[in-house]
Amino acid sequence: MVIVMKNNATEEQIKKVIERVESLGLKAHPIYGQEKTIIGVIGDENILRAHPVNPYEGVEEVKSIAKPFKFASREFKQEDTIIDVNGIKIGGGNFVVMAGPCSVENRDMLFETAKRVKEAGASILRGGAFKPRTSPYDFQGLGEEGLKYLKEAAIEYNMAVITEVMDARDIELIDKYADIFQVGARNMQNFTLLKELGKTDKPVMLKRGMAATVKDLLMAAEYIIASGNKNVILCERGIRTFETYTRNTVDINIIPSVKELSHLPIIIDSSHGTGRRSHVGPIALAGLVAGADGSMIEVHPSPENALSDGPQSLRFHEFDELMSKMKKYLEFEGRKLS
Amino acid sequence: MVIVMKNNATEEQIKKVIERVESLGLKAHPIYGQEKTIIGVIGDENILRAHPVNPYEGVEEVKSIAKPFKFASREFKQEDTIIDVNGIKIGGGNFVVMAGPCSVENRDMLFETAKRVKEAGASILRGGAFKPRTSPYDFQGLGEEGLKYLKEAAIEYNMAVITEVMDARDIELIDKYADIFQVGARNMQNFTLLKELGKTDKPVMLKRGMAATVKDLLMAAEYIIASGNKNVILCERGIRTFETYTRNTVDINIIPSVKELSHLPIIIDSSHGTGRRSHVGPIALAGLVAGADGSMIEVHPSPENALSDGPQSLRFHEFDELMSKMKKYLEFEGRKLS
Amino acid sequence: MVIVMKNNATEEQIKKVIERVESLGLKAHPIYGQEKTIIGVIGDENILRAHPVNPYEGVEEVKSIAKPFKFASREFKQEDTIIDVNGIKIGGGNFVVMAGPCSVENRDMLFETAKRVKEAGASILRGGAFKPRTSPYDFQGLGEEGLKYLKEAAIEYNMAVITEVMDARDIELIDKYADIFQVGARNMQNFTLLKELGKTDKPVMLKRGMAATVKDLLMAAEYIIASGNKNVILCERGIRTFETYTRNTVDINIIPSVKELSHLPIIIDSSHGTGRRSHVGPIALAGLVAGADGSMIEVHPSPENALSDGPQSLRFHEFDELMSKMKKYLEFEGRKLS
Amino acid sequence: MVIVMKNNATEEQIKKVIERVESLGLKAHPIYGQEKTIIGVIGDENILRAHPVNPYEGVEEVKSIAKPFKFASREFKQEDTIIDVNGIKIGGGNFVVMAGPCSVENRDMLFETAKRVKEAGASILRGGAFKPRTSPYDFQGLGEEGLKYLKEAAIEYNMAVITEVMDARDIELIDKYADIFQVGARNMQNFTLLKELGKTDKPVMLKRGMAATVKDLLMAAEYIIASGNKNVILCERGIRTFETYTRNTVDINIIPSVKELSHLPIIIDSSHGTGRRSHVGPIALAGLVAGADGSMIEVHPSPENALSDGPQSLRFHEFDELMSKMKKYLEFEGRKLS
Repeated sequence: MVIVMKNNATEEQIKKVIERVESLGLKAHPIYGQEKTIIGVIGDENILRAHPVNPYEGVEEVKSIAKPFKFASREFKQEDTIIDVNGIKIGGGNFVVMAGPCSVENRDMLFETAKRVKEAGASILRGGAFKPRTSPYDFQGLGEEGLKYLKEAAIEYNMAVITEVMDARDIELIDKYADIFQVGARNMQNFTLLKELGKTDKPVMLKRGMAATVKDLLMAAEYIIASGNKNVILCERGIRTFETYTRNTVDINIIPSVKELSHLPIIIDSSHGTGRRSHVGPIALAGLVAGADGSMIEVHPSPENALSDGPQSLRFHEFDELMSKMKKYLEFEGRKLS
Repeated sequence: MVIVMKNNATEEQIKKVIERVESLGLKAHPIYGQEKTIIGVIGDENILRAHPVNPYEGVEEVKSIAKPFKFASREFKQEDTIIDVNGIKIGGGNFVVMAGPCSVENRDMLFETAKRVKEAGASILRGGAFKPRTSPYDFQGLGEEGLKYLKEAAIEYNMAVITEVMDARDIELIDKYADIFQVGARNMQNFTLLKELGKTDKPVMLKRGMAATVKDLLMAAEYIIASGNKNVILCERGIRTFETYTRNTVDINIIPSVKELSHLPIIIDSSHGTGRRSHVGPIALAGLVAGADGSMIEVHPSPENALSDGPQSLRFHEFDELMSKMKKYLEFEGRKLS
Repeated sequence: MVIVMKNNATEEQIKKVIERVESLGLKAHPIYGQEKTIIGVIGDENILRAHPVNPYEGVEEVKSIAKPFKFASREFKQEDTIIDVNGIKIGGGNFVVMAGPCSVENRDMLFETAKRVKEAGASILRGGAFKPRTSPYDFQGLGEEGLKYLKEAAIEYNMAVITEVMDARDIELIDKYADIFQVGARNMQNFTLLKELGKTDKPVMLKRGMAATVKDLLMAAEYIIASGNKNVILCERGIRTFETYTRNTVDINIIPSVKELSHLPIIIDSSHGTGRRSHVGPIALAGLVAGADGSMIEVHPSPENALSDGPQSLRFHEFDELMSKMKKYLEFEGRKLS
Repeated sequence: MVIVMKNNATEEQIKKVIERVESLGLKAHPIYGQEKTIIGVIGDENILRAHPVNPYEGVEEVKSIAKPFKFASREFKQEDTIIDVNGIKIGGGNFVVMAGPCSVENRDMLFETAKRVKEAGASILRGGAFKPRTSPYDFQGLGEEGLKYLKEAAIEYNMAVITEVMDARDIELIDKYADIFQVGARNMQNFTLLKELGKTDKPVMLKRGMAATVKDLLMAAEYIIASGNKNVILCERGIRTFETYTRNTVDINIIPSVKELSHLPIIIDSSHGTGRRSHVGPIALAGLVAGADGSMIEVHPSPENALSDGPQSLRFHEFDELMSKMKKYLEFEGRKLS
């Protein structure tokens, strides 16, 4: 860290800060400028974060130098993490497609959808059984019944299952049916949930919060990894901006940022991210060429009758067309669809 | 709701939308303009929200007219809600001060702080026992030990206790020690937690999420009320903006907005909201004159040694000065400190 | 428009609003619901915008139905606008690359850069002569000298010139040297400048403001078109979000939004938009596949010595590589590089 | 500045950066940590900003230490700037009220309004003659005719005039009629306009841009001061946030921030800032107690018929009530209304 002293900081104040830093077992290197003195601090930044010197007289600001996350960082692990879900590879150049309805509404629609998305090239089946809804009056999901259908459809069509976990108490139940736990954007900083998922060994897909930065997202991933589970998949699903024409704003820029800062794979959810059927395809393709490791897409047999997120769900033939484009782009780039 | 059709929508498309609306038990009133047709819909908006017509051909947009929350609305309940916590009144012109350290660090510092803030005029003791920290490497709180200290200090100095609950599994434990449950900004849309707190009868103070609007906040309150608990206190603790000089941006504007839209009391947390000691007082006073029902303030015997949020914690004498100003303003306005 | 009355609005209040609306020459269609009355208004929305009824007693909200822009809308003009700059086509499936240094620093570096970017496939030469700099102490550009170099280099290498105009008084001067006027993000709502540019007949590239929505951008374009100049090119150059790892956040989502709402071409500036050399290529490619009509890219012979924006400028060999990828993608999509 | 090198930066790379820094006449102080090397740089930061080392190999980040503005800073000038407008003092504990209609609509309404706001205690008359309107189809102001009415009304009622300048070409004209130039939020970074206003000696009130930070605002003020005009008044008029219930979000937090960082006075515009009549008073009062140097308020004889911003304009009796409250608060705080 670097401690920046105020212009009028006294020698006494500077001395006290240096003493405090060294009393914590760190080394202080003051640099005296004409106007300002700055103090470079060598050692573990977490110590200074836990015992901040900002309240000391004469301190103007403390600037962090090191990244706040460790295990999630590219510096800690150079090579891309590749996560294996029943043989389906995520990361390291492999491209995975997760598709299915927003919510599991009933057995038939789920089976019909699973069949069609698998035929088109998706290998992971998505579907919400526990739904986080902004309104308590909206459809909240089928619960365990929905989980059973997911598992059955996955077996029938040889897919893996991803579904959302909203509460640490549901982990055990969901663990019986799902292959990947999904943590929603609203729970990105539900630290209790992250720690509990860190104690399992199943892959966790962590969605970026609506107002989170790439560092916030990687810190949330760090919680899971530090608790013992290395199998973290990141997911960009749109941030909140001033734009209202799309539901959220998918941040394609985060893909090269994640690739620089971390070894973890990242998926783009252009369905939730845009909330408009017309945008799902272009943004999914944009993510693919920008380096994303996969795409999550909502598909529904009849969006007009969907119980949630109909406006953004692709119809079967629209999904077929998008998949055929994605396959061509992947081939063109020499990448594999897993 | 109002359904806006596209300029080139056909009669057939308009007809299908009207049929769909009426099949849901709602009444459709089309208005045919020169360029556009709009369809006014009479009936429960939640039905149309659950079965959106956006995916229908020819539909451009659906605009909500009714407020999405009911029990939290001023229309549902005209008079201010006044919450009684062991005789301490919150809302309806009463002004309450919640003060104490960010985290409970040990018994001595808590007792010392409780004594001083009570003397200065605070009636509710705040202090974190379970801490949501952005980094897994930061101090996470004392847990139940911290809760015990809070309860003991509250009894000793005749105060009530407010403390954060981060996980539905902790509700029972915290219930034994606390008088008010606090839900942090990061959990504002942890719907599972909200529903569980709705099953208790203890007051819940719900902090606004960093990217939440006033309607999002009131929808989250609606979750608690709809689950059975009417005792909801709102709290503005700063939103995320592009400003970096302050940690967050306390939105004073939400106070008159809440007063128009809802009957629930609202508290301002200018400590977390600004992250700067110099700003805590001015913003607390601004909140008071704009109509807030109380103030939450962090106080620490020695901010230089605080294990969390030292930079924004007031010293005892600073808190004394602020309280004496707040009392004068309240007196001037003819309001009571509870 | 739709006027939403308050739940407790009286018949008298509703009557007054209807009278007002009709006195403006518009038709009012009230729909009486159980809780709320809404009034659909048929006629020119601009009249109601100019004489808003919000201040009338009993009015809760007024919701706009029509788009606030006309000439810029896809409804007004179905087919894509194709702008012809000395034979270089922009829009309608043609893809154009604008490249060059951030600022014109001297004659040699500009000629060297122009030569190389032209060889690689760029047809329009960019370079700032008047620079909008956040600090008054930063390099402000060479002024007319810079314009001359741009013109000379463009003639030498058979390119067209785009350069920024910051002040209506400079239009005449810049008009002598440039083929396209560029309006920077900070001037997107400098309405005086927009109107004056509307009086010329040269193409104007309008950059989206840092906090602007797609509708704000199209309204700014409307100013230019309504003043007489139809040759407007839109440009996405990154919006401000909470992310700090990139300088701005390029919003790829705006591409399909613009394609739905408008007939105007849109260019992506991934250099200013991301501020990081590593991100320029991936985001340019993402824009291309999402449907953008071109790419603006900063190139510098020696970014280490650039007087502005070195951190994001591509070196010649990096630009060559990116161009060769872009050409392959265009070919793959059956599109032409203009 | 502090240059942070990458974890794997080589000794050669570090050496090159140090050489570059010293070749610019600055001193480099490397601090070698276990993981990272950082290089403290002593000397004028503007030199390094103009010749950034970010493009050098091995450089991870460059962190600024000094403030980017000088003349606007509290460090440059300790005591509050007090601006004198025909004897009306702004800053240094004096509180000024600027009131009047959004636009000058005609002579009568302006005179009537001026008379009433002066009687109530306002000393500066506001009113737009050139209006920045988002839509080209909205009322654009009366131009010079409006300016004349402002001047006449100000003479009649012994007030000073503030009005907006949108274009450098209008400065001379407006200078004949106005006592304070107002720069609107959309022009906060119209650097050409700022420089030209810096050449006059009349006070300039600079409104904060919708996405600007306090440092951006002070940098814009720096442009005016560095060009020769020290008489800068800052104005907070609401930033853009995700909230839609209010038109903008007035950031009260910026008041103590400005007081810490700068010596310039700051005014709160709660009319444009909130866009709701019900919010104007509470936010004006909040600004006053948080330390603002004045309040700008829109008043209209008949908001129902206003040509712009009726929804937020106070009626005469509402303004009277607010002024009487503000006077009491000022008296209570021992401050003077100028």
